[in-house]
Amino acid sequence: MQFSWNAVVKAVESKVEKAIFARFFEGEDLLEAVASTATHNGVDSGFFFLIGTLKNAALGYYEKGKYLPVEKTGPLEIVSCMGNVSTKEKNELVVHAHIVVSDRNSNVFGGHVLPGCTIDATAELMLVRVEKGVLRREFDAERNLYLWSLKE
Amino acid sequence: MQFSWNAVVKAVESKVEKAIFARFFEGEDLLEAVASTATHNGVDSGFFFLIGTLKNAALGYYEKGKYLPVEKTGPLEIVSCMGNVSTKEKNELVVHAHIVVSDRNSNVFGGHVLPGCTIDATAELMLVRVEKGVLRREFDAERNLYLWSLKE
Amino acid sequence: MQFSWNAVVKAVESKVEKAIFARFFEGEDLLEAVASTATHNGVDSGFFFLIGTLKNAALGYYEKGKYLPVEKTGPLEIVSCMGNVSTKEKNELVVHAHIVVSDRNSNVFGGHVLPGCTIDATAELMLVRVEKGVLRREFDAERNLYLWSLKE
Repeated sequence: MQFSWNAVVKAVESKVEKAIFARFFEGEDLLEAVASTATHNGVDSGFFFLIGTLKNAALGYYEKGKYLPVEKTGPLEIVSCMGNVSTKEKNELVVHAHIVVSDRNSNVFGGHVLPGCTIDATAELMLVRVEKGVLRREFDAERNLYLWSLKE
Repeated sequence: MQFSWNAVVKAVESKVEKAIFARFFEGEDLLEAVASTATHNGVDSGFFFLIGTLKNAALGYYEKGKYLPVEKTGPLEIVSCMGNVSTKEKNELVVHAHIVVSDRNSNVFGGHVLPGCTIDATAELMLVRVEKGVLRREFDAERNLYLWSLKE
Repeated sequence: MQFSWNAVVKAVESKVEKAIFARFFEGEDLLEAVASTATHNGVDSGFFFLIGTLKNAALGYYEKGKYLPVEKTGPLEIVSCMGNVSTKEKNELVVHAHIVVSDRNSNVFGGHVLPGCTIDATAELMLVRVEKGVLRREFDAERNLYLWSLKE
């Protein structure tokens, strides 16, 4: 495999500060629970992983500036969930995550995590905190999305 | 997206100590190989990721206090595997992982990793060790599961 | 769950040096963009995660010494992507990654990332750099693959 090395990327580096582990409880909203953990542990920039179970899933698919929602009724296993924590204007926290869930036949579904992913029996969060202010987002009018700005 | 910040989570922080990388061999059991790596590298608390291939997969779906098994015959790609290492009573090691596998048509299946996921050609483990004793589990009689206790 | 602890694994440890975050742009090749980020940030050994969107996906399935390709036309969500950066002979960089993508109905597909996974709106990379030289690959003639050698 040959790489051209020509890709234009925008990158920033940060010290890894801490690993934070949290257990979520039945009935909590996945995005809210991640945001709450981040806030209570001083994380405005970081990345995370989550496994557990959901009562139901709200999965997004990005198209023409918005997320089309797909609802899945559970219980479902969260077989993969990964994402990051950053801030946008006025230091408002943004939790961006993608998820894969599976049903009792091991069939899987996936998408962007929307509000409405409700924790079932439990969920285990592994959140890595990096330096404050490293991950910031700016509004991209063309895409109607807040994208990483990554200014060093 | 507005967060209520009200979610009640239980969280602990830890220093990230080391990254441990391991290669697994054909015929090994995925969970045993992770546990063996953890033991030989002094990890009783940490989180990990794994990619590689499986001869066959044993996938669990949690329902009413037990895991319903689904068996999938391979070879299969391990397209995602994430989990954590912790201890329960008597310092017995617990490896908790969820997995997504794909077949030759790129169709995917997922679930909780049960004993019986057998490595095929190879697998590459990335394990992050945190401080000893950070991740402990206690038995939850209602759910018949060992859940994170996370006492600071 | 009882572990036999007998699995023979090959493992190495490394300090975690830095977390590197990068944003990829429309039209870039996923593997090239990861390699480019690694090169520009001094990473010859590390592991990474990525979420975002693809215009189309090139997914591999390993069989008898080669990767059978499956092409999927997007746009697709990258619901999971994890992998590692290492070097082989002559210090040539190797990016090894597995991916799961989803379509507008939340159906998912997965495999080994081949050249030809083209970024759509954006992608967010979280790359962890470890010490130089930790992850090296050697050619395995039987499998026709470069596998981790992990010599301490």
